[in-house]
Amino acid sequence: MPGKCARSTLSQYLDGEFQDLKDRLRQEISQCELFHLTSYDLTLDETRDLTAERLHFVLQLPEMRRHLKEQVKERQNRFICKSLGIAEVICTADLATGVKMGVVCGLFGGAVTNLGSPEQKEKWYLPVTELQFTGMFAMTERGHGSNVRGILTEAHYEPSSQEFIINTPCEDAKKMYIGNAMKGNCAAVFAQLIVNGESQGPHCFIVPIRDHQGVMYPGVTAVDMKHKEGLHGVDNGILVFNNVHIPRENLLNKFGSVSPDGVYHSPIQNKSKRFNAMLAALTPTRLALTVQALAAMKLGLIIAVRYSHSRRQFGPRDQEEVKIIEHQTQYLRLMPHLAAALALTFTTRFAAEMMDEALHHGRDLMNSRSLQALVAGLKAYSTWENLACLQDCRECTGGMGFMMENRIPALKCDSDVFVTFEGDNVVMLQVVVRELMTQYTKQLESNAMFGLLRNWTSTASDSLRTSVLGFSMDKVGDLAFLLKAVSYRERVLQRSLAARLYTKVEKNKDEFFRAWNSCLHHVTSLALAHIHRGRR
Amino acid sequence: MPGKCARSTLSQYLDGEFQDLKDRLRQEISQCELFHLTSYDLTLDETRDLTAERLHFVLQLPEMRRHLKEQVKERQNRFICKSLGIAEVICTADLATGVKMGVVCGLFGGAVTNLGSPEQKEKWYLPVTELQFTGMFAMTERGHGSNVRGILTEAHYEPSSQEFIINTPCEDAKKMYIGNAMKGNCAAVFAQLIVNGESQGPHCFIVPIRDHQGVMYPGVTAVDMKHKEGLHGVDNGILVFNNVHIPRENLLNKFGSVSPDGVYHSPIQNKSKRFNAMLAALTPTRLALTVQALAAMKLGLIIAVRYSHSRRQFGPRDQEEVKIIEHQTQYLRLMPHLAAALALTFTTRFAAEMMDEALHHGRDLMNSRSLQALVAGLKAYSTWENLACLQDCRECTGGMGFMMENRIPALKCDSDVFVTFEGDNVVMLQVVVRELMTQYTKQLESNAMFGLLRNWTSTASDSLRTSVLGFSMDKVGDLAFLLKAVSYRERVLQRSLAARLYTKVEKNKDEFFRAWNSCLHHVTSLALAHIHRGRR
Repeated sequence: MPGKCARSTLSQYLDGEFQDLKDRLRQEISQCELFHLTSYDLTLDETRDLTAERLHFVLQLPEMRRHLKEQVKERQNRFICKSLGIAEVICTADLATGVKMGVVCGLFGGAVTNLGSPEQKEKWYLPVTELQFTGMFAMTERGHGSNVRGILTEAHYEPSSQEFIINTPCEDAKKMYIGNAMKGNCAAVFAQLIVNGESQGPHCFIVPIRDHQGVMYPGVTAVDMKHKEGLHGVDNGILVFNNVHIPRENLLNKFGSVSPDGVYHSPIQNKSKRFNAMLAALTPTRLALTVQALAAMKLGLIIAVRYSHSRRQFGPRDQEEVKIIEHQTQYLRLMPHLAAALALTFTTRFAAEMMDEALHHGRDLMNSRSLQALVAGLKAYSTWENLACLQDCRECTGGMGFMMENRIPALKCDSDVFVTFEGDNVVMLQVVVRELMTQYTKQLESNAMFGLLRNWTSTASDSLRTSVLGFSMDKVGDLAFLLKAVSYRERVLQRSLAARLYTKVEKNKDEFFRAWNSCLHHVTSLALAHIHRGRR
Repeated sequence: MPGKCARSTLSQYLDGEFQDLKDRLRQEISQCELFHLTSYDLTLDETRDLTAERLHFVLQLPEMRRHLKEQVKERQNRFICKSLGIAEVICTADLATGVKMGVVCGLFGGAVTNLGSPEQKEKWYLPVTELQFTGMFAMTERGHGSNVRGILTEAHYEPSSQEFIINTPCEDAKKMYIGNAMKGNCAAVFAQLIVNGESQGPHCFIVPIRDHQGVMYPGVTAVDMKHKEGLHGVDNGILVFNNVHIPRENLLNKFGSVSPDGVYHSPIQNKSKRFNAMLAALTPTRLALTVQALAAMKLGLIIAVRYSHSRRQFGPRDQEEVKIIEHQTQYLRLMPHLAAALALTFTTRFAAEMMDEALHHGRDLMNSRSLQALVAGLKAYSTWENLACLQDCRECTGGMGFMMENRIPALKCDSDVFVTFEGDNVVMLQVVVRELMTQYTKQLESNAMFGLLRNWTSTASDSLRTSVLGFSMDKVGDLAFLLKAVSYRERVLQRSLAARLYTKVEKNKDEFFRAWNSCLHHVTSLALAHIHRGRR
């Protein structure tokens, strides 16, 4: 049976090394009645309760508890690869549960484990893995979403009590869109650390929000944000802090700490670099988002492709109507997304392996700049590709694709916000290009102007060769030629962007933000060309 | 105050000749408390009830009643233009109400008024305008959505009782996605008319569904289709007929009638042409859909552009952050949609005027083939453009754009099905190209092969001239050059498609459906190029 053999080999490739674990999880979930319910008829509160119960079910599975404890103790070799495998299975079962698990384990858990000391992990994350409480991640504010460096929440150190006082000084400083805000017990809150009147930039603090009975701690307010396009099971809210006192030990202290008498210490002196290091440490959750998008995409494709093989419409005169997958437009709309899903599966795994290796060797993720850029690019590309894919799946399944029972609409609505959260996609593309420009400048070493000119010349000769090759029609299906073409596109865009920025900033003395902004369309085109080409 | 003056002139242009009527309607609606409610917290049934109440409110407005009565009596000069103006106002207030009004007045009302006799209009549509009952439109079946010619519902004529017997012979014949199916009183049902054992093709019958107390008529079943991605206020259902007897007078008889003793008469002998004539008579509702999409698009743009002028994020070092509309990517994402909304506004009005003129002069819409093609193309282009626009509005407003209270998500979910209903967009593009190919064949008159060759030659010389012009950079902003470019693209695609089809069908003797299907991507590219160029 070569067909069966081929299928199982493909599923092995798709699931990768953790296929057995994923299969066991799939089986556990498929046998759990909580996942058999649909939520269309439920109220918002009932939907959130169902999601919380589903998350609790997942977290208490022995496999999951074993895995999460690894995050607290010594890191396993393949922790990130394994986490992503698990995330995909949960998201396929229910995206809201997957996203809520991402908030509790990835964002809150990631903040504690990547920004905290071993003692802080024991104190704040071990109980989560033991289902004693859940956490949330409070970075975004009303006034600052993409530009998180500008957050306004304050954390004043008070030496007399050895406490930090967390405060929301104004409307714009309110923490917004916080997932698990209406149910969670404590939050990883980013605030400007102020010691002796001097700001040390944003740091992360553990702030208790409500006790196990749901009673709020003094000074903390959580406002329900209620109805969203999707992810109804995730309770997003607004957090406001009115001079909330927390112990000194609640500052996650890997990148900065305050001594009892109020002296600030940090292994990184530059404030901006320090914050970059914190953000870099949180990169793994960004890669998880790629996997969440992939889960939605694969599920949508399975539904749409299967339907297209069963539905018949139109056909040759006086003959049976043909399967709609045989309509040229139908397969030309669906198949490229299937190809993209496969390409993204393997590129994501490649990035996860690089990350695991970096962490295994104790390297700071801040120093893996090209990995940062790859992950930012993958986040943008995969979440956009997911939306385009699901939209085609929706349209290619006609009226059926508009009915909630067929899952595609909910997948679309749930994953729509993926292009925004964990870093807006347009900002992500700029992260990619800043890295490309840095590499480019390094390559050119000394004389920037000379380098640019030399490169422009070689671009011109490239152009000639490529366009001559382009005339041969059989080249279109030749992978080596296609790779050459996408590399060429990227190179031309990169060199011309460098030249434009050089002229604006170095020659015309334009302010950098203005210069960069006037090239932003060029920047995003280059970023997409880079991601499209794939691995370095 | 030149600014104010410019604005009011623009709004005059946008609203067109019915600005005063539209303003009065806007005021009536804005003062109606039913439209102040939000439906996120309501159950599905409550949402549907609210929509029904909103529709009732709109239909009882004196302006509306006057307008609808015009549809029953002698047609006014500008009936379609006026209807579209009204539809836009209602859809801007609430898309579900606008769509439900479209079902009751446009689809059911349009079937009765365009396929029925004057007496049938008096009997079946006048009561709707007097709020005595509401109707629905039952064409689509489970087995046949796009290919409606293949519907399976049967209407047998029984001379002994002078009745038609409407029957659903199988699962695939069930009428699906029928709007107002859970609340409406009677349906315009398309069924294969069978007289003396001979089928005369699809015809439209008025079938009573439920009385004023909601009691179903014998033999009729309506199954609730429940939860959809959007348009929650529209009650879609499945209709099943188990040998339902209706009087002979319930066959809408403009294009075909049966005498008491069972003799079939029709002004059109060819069955296929007859059905085409019926479909053509229903074209106005397709144009209404373009207006519904435009309403969603304009509203989304207003929200996104205003937000982009108030939100600030990032900026030059040590200066205030800039408004996000100043980010190059932000305005490059939003402004083309604004331009498209304007272009579509005027093109739609142009099509409506053509349609009004044809109807005013008593011309059958079937004979205005190029108008049919324009409307089909506008339907596809505007509904896709709307979705692309709303998606950019959603993304450009960040997290805010994911919150239901900011309307963009609901607009997106409600209007998503516009690309499917009233004719799937991919099918609409094929309607456009069939018309283009017919015109092309006519142009070539006699010797097809010779004509093709001659045209290919002129294409080649066009190509040369255009590419030389293309080198001059200032041409890019020159409207005459751009029009030349889009015409050129269309011409090349049209000639090459004709040549490909000619080779396949005439030379290689391929079956037509297969030949056409193997060019389907080419077909859709040509259709979009044609619509993109705009007016003929």
